[in-house]
Amino acid sequence: MPIRLDTASADFAQRFAEFLASKREVSVDVNDKAAAIIADVRARGDAALTDYSRTFDRVDLAALGLRVPDAELDAALASIDAETRAALELAKARIESHHARQRPADDSYTDALGVTLGHRWTSVDAVGLYVPGGTAAYPSSVLMNAVPAKVAGVPRIVMVVPAPDGVIAPLVLAAAKLAGVHEVYRVGGAQAVAALAYGTETIAPVDKIVGPGNAFVAAAKRQVFGKVGIDMIAGPSEVLILADGTASADFVAADLLAQAEHDTAAQSILVTDSDELAAHVTAAVEDMLARLPREEIARASWRDHGAIIKVESLDAAIALVDRVAPEHLEIHAADADALAAKVRHAGAIFIGAFTPEAIGDYVGGSNHVLPTARSARFSSGLSVLDFMKRTSILKCAPDALAVLGPAAMRLAAAERLDAHGRSVAIRTNLPPEGGQ
Amino acid sequence: MPIRLDTASADFAQRFAEFLASKREVSVDVNDKAAAIIADVRARGDAALTDYSRTFDRVDLAALGLRVPDAELDAALASIDAETRAALELAKARIESHHARQRPADDSYTDALGVTLGHRWTSVDAVGLYVPGGTAAYPSSVLMNAVPAKVAGVPRIVMVVPAPDGVIAPLVLAAAKLAGVHEVYRVGGAQAVAALAYGTETIAPVDKIVGPGNAFVAAAKRQVFGKVGIDMIAGPSEVLILADGTASADFVAADLLAQAEHDTAAQSILVTDSDELAAHVTAAVEDMLARLPREEIARASWRDHGAIIKVESLDAAIALVDRVAPEHLEIHAADADALAAKVRHAGAIFIGAFTPEAIGDYVGGSNHVLPTARSARFSSGLSVLDFMKRTSILKCAPDALAVLGPAAMRLAAAERLDAHGRSVAIRTNLPPEGGQ
Repeated sequence: MPIRLDTASADFAQRFAEFLASKREVSVDVNDKAAAIIADVRARGDAALTDYSRTFDRVDLAALGLRVPDAELDAALASIDAETRAALELAKARIESHHARQRPADDSYTDALGVTLGHRWTSVDAVGLYVPGGTAAYPSSVLMNAVPAKVAGVPRIVMVVPAPDGVIAPLVLAAAKLAGVHEVYRVGGAQAVAALAYGTETIAPVDKIVGPGNAFVAAAKRQVFGKVGIDMIAGPSEVLILADGTASADFVAADLLAQAEHDTAAQSILVTDSDELAAHVTAAVEDMLARLPREEIARASWRDHGAIIKVESLDAAIALVDRVAPEHLEIHAADADALAAKVRHAGAIFIGAFTPEAIGDYVGGSNHVLPTARSARFSSGLSVLDFMKRTSILKCAPDALAVLGPAAMRLAAAERLDAHGRSVAIRTNLPPEGGQ
Repeated sequence: MPIRLDTASADFAQRFAEFLASKREVSVDVNDKAAAIIADVRARGDAALTDYSRTFDRVDLAALGLRVPDAELDAALASIDAETRAALELAKARIESHHARQRPADDSYTDALGVTLGHRWTSVDAVGLYVPGGTAAYPSSVLMNAVPAKVAGVPRIVMVVPAPDGVIAPLVLAAAKLAGVHEVYRVGGAQAVAALAYGTETIAPVDKIVGPGNAFVAAAKRQVFGKVGIDMIAGPSEVLILADGTASADFVAADLLAQAEHDTAAQSILVTDSDELAAHVTAAVEDMLARLPREEIARASWRDHGAIIKVESLDAAIALVDRVAPEHLEIHAADADALAAKVRHAGAIFIGAFTPEAIGDYVGGSNHVLPTARSARFSSGLSVLDFMKRTSILKCAPDALAVLGPAAMRLAAAERLDAHGRSVAIRTNLPPEGGQ
């Protein structure tokens, strides 16, 4: 059974703290193995990729080829049914138009002293997108990662995806083709991350790596961080549903299960001020679970990590929501908009009874790559900004330097960086302050 | 002598590639030691901080106190001379007014279907600022990290700074006071990073850690990433000066040395189309070096990592600049603005002969925390955005869900996530597609 908490209980504070601290993933330390794989790929390039793919994916890249030919991408796109293709195209168009609004503006202004300040945004040159293989191969994730990169203007988007037993889901290749991915390689794991970061004979290195993966992929991304940029390290997914007595128990139960079916480590939380809703949702979950194809996964997630938290009022619950900092927050309540406006920490908020999280997963237009495991306290979902960077620009007129120079020289002297002070003094003909 | 390259040489491409790949830091693997310290601080809290500080900093925190009392901050601010205080205040005011322009805008709009999309920016709740001790204790860095956090609206800004032999530079404490840092603790190293990430009896945990540090600090930041947010991992500083025959050799030489005096691992690069300028700069550097208090450091940096690269034209040099992706780029040339506009990868650009980088270090108003070691290819200097995060918001009117629902259900079916499809179907009364 999911955990039950009540803010009215004497031990609530302690039990809630324990709940927040509980780990949903067995943390496997694969750092040494990932490091060895990275070193090997740096040393042996494509040959190392071939060896690891034979071992881990039972595939012979020497025969099949590391790069997926364009013809194979075209064939994958041609192979999917018209309805699915139309759904992918709708998703792509909506993601594109929403993300286009995220393009940042440059700035340039000259202040009263004659100093021109500003910044200019430019795209990253080359991005690598990691896509997991097997059952977690989601075409929607390909779109959610590749389309913002495209909107940012990234000129080279590379995708890596493992091909266990030689197979890559055609939908994943079709989504890559639709999204305009430039190169696709059939390799996964830490070896794929190493190839993207350092390059091999076949794969030119990229500047930033995004996308989710298993523990090896996460460890490898952490290790190559600095050499290249990385996005967040994704953990298991979670939803918190804030609902009052007006909510539909069926809608709430369906959404808790849409989260739970992802993974046994996924987490679904209901926070409500209504005992009656809690009881109805509990019953509806049990009823729906029995009819789900992924019943076993969803049942384990709900049993081991699910929670129902009873609160005095939804207003008072906002502080709890902020402490959970959920990846997904749904609000089913009479005053959903007002409640949403009070939340500080959440990856995404889905407002009202007719906004199931699944809409955001596919066709809403906003990004479904969101901060997990409480990291919404300090990070944001994927956006166009993740594929761009800002160069700051400074230009002093000689008069401006004359006005600002003495203060800069004073601080340089205080920090005992005499050459800093002299680089100002030589232009302003002021005596250097150095040497104190 | 610094390395000399010429794009006209037959072996230029290879030598330039080697130059880019050369390491300026001995990379010390301190991961295991940092991990042990983090584990110990998690287990023993303040007692561990006291033990490490006794060993590494020769200071008795049990006697002196972990937290620096407000009275000590006030006394530090009162102790500095009026001119230095005025310079710090000018720097703070300029940083503040420039960074205020970086505050991001919220967005909300309803599309033709009736879907409301948008995002809201909120500040991180608590930020930890790491400040190195000893000779690298720079009050300007305190301002550059704390002021943007303040502008972002961060309600709790915590600073940690080691106190070797019990001493913290009064200027650092004064800058913290001026910048409005809320809590200061006299502890450094991996133990300080662990305390910020996990908390101890005295130090409440923060959500994000920023600021430069030594190899232990960098390793610890990398390890706590995920539990908290971190900024970039800073490497040694660098400048690339792009100059034509109109440039002043003295200005160029002074700026190369302002970079070189930071650290023996710092790097100063001159790229020019003028043999005459190159010769004059070489002579001026030698001349100025002999008169610098930090001659030894600057000389080692220039000798071991300095470079003069001869190009056919500055226009043709832009591609080289982008490959270096320098932290600081100065342009001393007749058409400096036009050249600056063509650069894609640089942390900051300083345009024209009267914009020495030192102005940006102190009082220009832009941030001096910039991406080093070629990471301007994928990351930006510190800004207000580093202390905020974006919550995305989605709201469907029932009609909008009816229109988008079928495509979402199609994709859910394609990904075999039936509960996702059902969460839509239950609201739209469409037959679920699941189970295929």
